Amino acid sequence: MSENNKTTFGDMPADEFRRHGYAMVDRIAEYFEHLEEYPVLSQIEPGWLTENLPASPPEEGEDFASSLADVDKLILPAVTHWNHPNFHGLFSTSTSSVGIFGEMLSAAFDMKAMLWRTSPASTELEDVTLDWLRQMLGLPDQFEGIIYDTASVSTMHAIAAARERAGLQIRELGTSGRGDLPLLRVYTSEHVHSSIDKSCITLGLGLQGLRKIGCNDRFEMIPELLADAIEEDIEAGYIPICVIPTIGTTSSSSVDPVDAIANICEKYGIWLHVDAAYAGPAALLPEKRHLFTSRELKEDPHSAIRDPQFTGWERADSIVLNPHKWLFTPFDLSVLYCRDLSELKGAFSLVAEYLKTNDEPAVKNGMDYGIQLGRRFRALKLWFVIRYFGVRGLTERIREHCRLAELFASWVDASDDFEMMAPVPFALVCFRAKPAGMSGAELDALNERIMNAINASGEAYLSHTRLNGKYTLRLSVGSIRVEQRHLEKVWRLLNEHLAAELEHS
Amino acid sequence: MSENNKTTFGDMPADEFRRHGYAMVDRIAEYFEHLEEYPVLSQIEPGWLTENLPASPPEEGEDFASSLADVDKLILPAVTHWNHPNFHGLFSTSTSSVGIFGEMLSAAFDMKAMLWRTSPASTELEDVTLDWLRQMLGLPDQFEGIIYDTASVSTMHAIAAARERAGLQIRELGTSGRGDLPLLRVYTSEHVHSSIDKSCITLGLGLQGLRKIGCNDRFEMIPELLADAIEEDIEAGYIPICVIPTIGTTSSSSVDPVDAIANICEKYGIWLHVDAAYAGPAALLPEKRHLFTSRELKEDPHSAIRDPQFTGWERADSIVLNPHKWLFTPFDLSVLYCRDLSELKGAFSLVAEYLKTNDEPAVKNGMDYGIQLGRRFRALKLWFVIRYFGVRGLTERIREHCRLAELFASWVDASDDFEMMAPVPFALVCFRAKPAGMSGAELDALNERIMNAINASGEAYLSHTRLNGKYTLRLSVGSIRVEQRHLEKVWRLLNEHLAAELEHS
Repeated sequence: MSENNKTTFGDMPADEFRRHGYAMVDRIAEYFEHLEEYPVLSQIEPGWLTENLPASPPEEGEDFASSLADVDKLILPAVTHWNHPNFHGLFSTSTSSVGIFGEMLSAAFDMKAMLWRTSPASTELEDVTLDWLRQMLGLPDQFEGIIYDTASVSTMHAIAAARERAGLQIRELGTSGRGDLPLLRVYTSEHVHSSIDKSCITLGLGLQGLRKIGCNDRFEMIPELLADAIEEDIEAGYIPICVIPTIGTTSSSSVDPVDAIANICEKYGIWLHVDAAYAGPAALLPEKRHLFTSRELKEDPHSAIRDPQFTGWERADSIVLNPHKWLFTPFDLSVLYCRDLSELKGAFSLVAEYLKTNDEPAVKNGMDYGIQLGRRFRALKLWFVIRYFGVRGLTERIREHCRLAELFASWVDASDDFEMMAPVPFALVCFRAKPAGMSGAELDALNERIMNAINASGEAYLSHTRLNGKYTLRLSVGSIRVEQRHLEKVWRLLNEHLAAELEHS
Repeated sequence: MSENNKTTFGDMPADEFRRHGYAMVDRIAEYFEHLEEYPVLSQIEPGWLTENLPASPPEEGEDFASSLADVDKLILPAVTHWNHPNFHGLFSTSTSSVGIFGEMLSAAFDMKAMLWRTSPASTELEDVTLDWLRQMLGLPDQFEGIIYDTASVSTMHAIAAARERAGLQIRELGTSGRGDLPLLRVYTSEHVHSSIDKSCITLGLGLQGLRKIGCNDRFEMIPELLADAIEEDIEAGYIPICVIPTIGTTSSSSVDPVDAIANICEKYGIWLHVDAAYAGPAALLPEKRHLFTSRELKEDPHSAIRDPQFTGWERADSIVLNPHKWLFTPFDLSVLYCRDLSELKGAFSLVAEYLKTNDEPAVKNGMDYGIQLGRRFRALKLWFVIRYFGVRGLTERIREHCRLAELFASWVDASDDFEMMAPVPFALVCFRAKPAGMSGAELDALNERIMNAINASGEAYLSHTRLNGKYTLRLSVGSIRVEQRHLEKVWRLLNEHLAAELEHS
């Protein structure tokens, strides 16, 4: 019988917790020390883990050591290592050690931050930490934040608040069965994240309720097309409720002209929600601030964005950004900043009898600001991260990522066999192999083969997109462990795989 | 300068991680050892933590030890201790040590389980662990699960799938601006969790789209009233899309007659979603199984539910239950079981170019089943929990909680000064002080004063609800640390505070 089947019903005894806890810490430390020895992309075949696990749960409890042994034997081979410094796919993200400490402690407290009184620590630390972050980003002090799990959920809440502002009593009456209710529309660019489509599906706006606006050759939304679309929709009797420009689109990290879009939103009284889920933390860098705000205009000759007036996120009604993407905070922690948080509360607040308290009305209850009632104590890990690295440490790390991405782009630019496919405003490089004498279709196939070969090798992980119809490789630089040698390795792999391809053809 | 401001840009060095990691483990072990010395309810005044934290973030990084010291000095006094064995409010929940280990490792991997290939471990372990849990609960094998953060989000997804099944192309067309689209309706009892109201708000159904059905004197939905409501709505031209009975309502843990409700859903072709968020894990107990399923009918003379035909969750289209509530798994982990998961996928799947892969179509990609793109590796902690305690260890702990609740109820029953307010099918006791000679309003005020006094003392934490209009105290038994002596303490406190009240009056 294992040690946990004692006559008492409680939890693991404290001495056992210490022993296994130290082992977990050691295991994680070793994992980080040997991270580069693992293939970035898991090499298992689909179904391998399932086949190697028992089909039924154990009747009797087991010593935790056996679970930890199975982590090595079964789980690790099935892990695609997001923390590997050569994970450059999607957006490269990584946790930091203090972030892990935050998750440990948050799990130990295990609080559900619904009411202030059930979680004063979480409620107040969230406010304070998000205000710190607001200052770091250079946002005006009327912006107040709330933490959700993901940007998808943050954005869904922003659109819901926008929908409520339209004054159509949608919270009470809904949108179905109202013959007189016109079509509600959300506007965004054709390069946005799929979460906006999913938000519109969820909220009952439907994909029809989302109109995608065309972009220029730098993949930035064209404000004139947005204005035309809104005019057209208003004439058709539709109601525009929200416009969502992106600072750092998922495909190419392009920056929509927020300032020009804000002018349009102001004119028509439409909610402006800025999606800076990925790029938001780059606002810490003074030299990148002009990509976000029109207040601190700076002429930067190295900027990929040619017109600094093309920004102005401080004019938004809401902004989403994800510390779990590019601020070394473990997944999940997404922040929604609102100019007036009471609008969000108005859309969602609903207090059941069993949640009523005598607390003064001034107390903030997290549950009032969204669909989730219970909320994890997520602020703790962000607080740890900001304190451990300091504003300077965070800024320098993000700056180094931008430097590495620009360096990689310079190698692409200098090569006859590769070409850049988009500007590099942050730390994402969009490029492709382009040896002489190949058709467009041949280039698409070639680049796909090169990427798949590199990914399959486990040496590095890249992802792709399509820009102007062309198959494009994406290299994201964002791991806390990434160094110049990792970029050099990718560049070497790309050239080797291209050479091998050209030899075989 | 602190140790982290090295010339390298990376993370905390491994030796430092080990040192602080051990300290974190020790701190958490100590926390659990001394848990009972803390007041259950935080004793701080609103704003105390905010005032004691710096208004701005540190420019330079700090040693992690200073953050850990501030946890003791500033965070702990602001914590309401959900893990305290005398936390009996709302639903008493608690983490277990192995659950904390799961969160540590999940944070270290920091994977975003969107695609199978970016997270084979999470994708497959989730399937396997949820199938283990399905077997433990006695659900038929066609049920397949998916993990979300909270029951609110699980239920929102279930209603969205139900909305899609109605065949009205809502995913594409939405519900606004469609003059011919009738009002869509969801049905539930008047005792449900507020998350269902919020789901309806979010989905654009509005509060008008939710019809609440009356209950009998045991707080169970009356199927005849449901049938009448549906008939009435159909006659009015509305479209019923979903019925949500609850097994273990939030107010009183009452059990709606799922079998009779399933008959009605079958007749009208309506999606049946069962909310077993709280009580679900009690299905592990053979002696409680009759509260869930009509397949294993058992006549249990001790059961609070008089008619065992009043169940049948295996007939549902979807079921939500929360291992983070009553299965010793750290918050958050909510499971949605669907009879046909492809219906959920049909409502949400949407694949952007940058997420397309060459993986065979048979591979499951978590992102296809909901609004969130990235998903935490939550299955790990549940896998640890099931393995460490075993089915038997989990069953015995839940059984002990039910025994303690029944014991407490027997004390109430035997007392002249208190009375029971609802049956105790699981481990929630609804009761009130009822000394002789007081009016209804006086009893309400008395019970509120007693609860507030106990909560303010920090000795124990209770919450309340209203049943049949009467102020009712709720005592939930669910902590992994709870023992009989904790219930005896609450009973003593209640009697002492009642005596003090009667003395003063």
